[in-house]
Amino acid sequence: MAAKTMQDLLIDELRDVYHAEKQITKSLPKLAKSVSSETLRQAMQHHLEETKGQIERLDKIFEHLDTRSRGKRCEAMEGLLDEAQQILEMGLAPEVLDAALIAAAQKVEHYEIASYGTLHAYAVACGLTEVAQLLDETLAEEKAADKKLNDLAVNDVNRKAIQASGQKAA
Amino acid sequence: MAAKTMQDLLIDELRDVYHAEKQITKSLPKLAKSVSSETLRQAMQHHLEETKGQIERLDKIFEHLDTRSRGKRCEAMEGLLDEAQQILEMGLAPEVLDAALIAAAQKVEHYEIASYGTLHAYAVACGLTEVAQLLDETLAEEKAADKKLNDLAVNDVNRKAIQASGQKAA
Repeated sequence: MAAKTMQDLLIDELRDVYHAEKQITKSLPKLAKSVSSETLRQAMQHHLEETKGQIERLDKIFEHLDTRSRGKRCEAMEGLLDEAQQILEMGLAPEVLDAALIAAAQKVEHYEIASYGTLHAYAVACGLTEVAQLLDETLAEEKAADKKLNDLAVNDVNRKAIQASGQKAA
Repeated sequence: MAAKTMQDLLIDELRDVYHAEKQITKSLPKLAKSVSSETLRQAMQHHLEETKGQIERLDKIFEHLDTRSRGKRCEAMEGLLDEAQQILEMGLAPEVLDAALIAAAQKVEHYEIASYGTLHAYAVACGLTEVAQLLDETLAEEKAADKKLNDLAVNDVNRKAIQASGQKAA
């Protein structure tokens, strides 16, 4: 086996995130159906559409690199989505469930932020300007999705979850 | 089983990250030994010491919440650290290995950023001011560790990895 180059690492990581995104498109509809906050549901549905666009962007990148679009099993994302699945089975009150699912979704977002951040840096280092540009667009979307979830938790969902818990809100 | 409150979720998530941090203290020394960049090794060793301090902070938080310090198996972190382990076995050139290990380490950092961000928000919502303050200190350390890794990749390690790959640097 030939020694791997940085471009090989870039392609490995692209395949990892490609598989991760595909898994997300399978899990998100189920999560969106389980939340009680309408704003959270809309944020999840919006991100589902965004994820489909990100997959198309990855297809373009594979094409640009003359490589077949394909995923490589991403165990970390499987673990993160399993965690979200387990939350659904915990029998939480609806408002508490929303808070717990936001936490799980933010872990998914942060995996992607780390991954696209690395991919962007690799593409820049390899001088692949167009690829770097496409990756940067996705990275910005992931950061915005994480921020939206964060704001929703802090300004709305967590407070309602505290009330539903019978705890005194701060 | 009684319905879970937000404080229960906070404790669940504390146990998850407690286990994650303990796993990190076991993996980091091995990763630090495998890198060739002296700056990267020092950053990893510094973060190992920081992680030990973060575990002590978690012990304090458990005490504050009158709960026994204990971990709950964190499969996501196991997956992330397995990924790092697999990179060590890929037979990469030393400089390319450094670039790949930074990527793996940033995924670990981002898991923690998401986790401590959530924990901080939960603690604030529960009115646990002192706990929130401790969590915020760790969150700031994790963000700084991620930034340090990022700067090191972009300004130094990735360029050397490109040269070692026999690719033309950008």
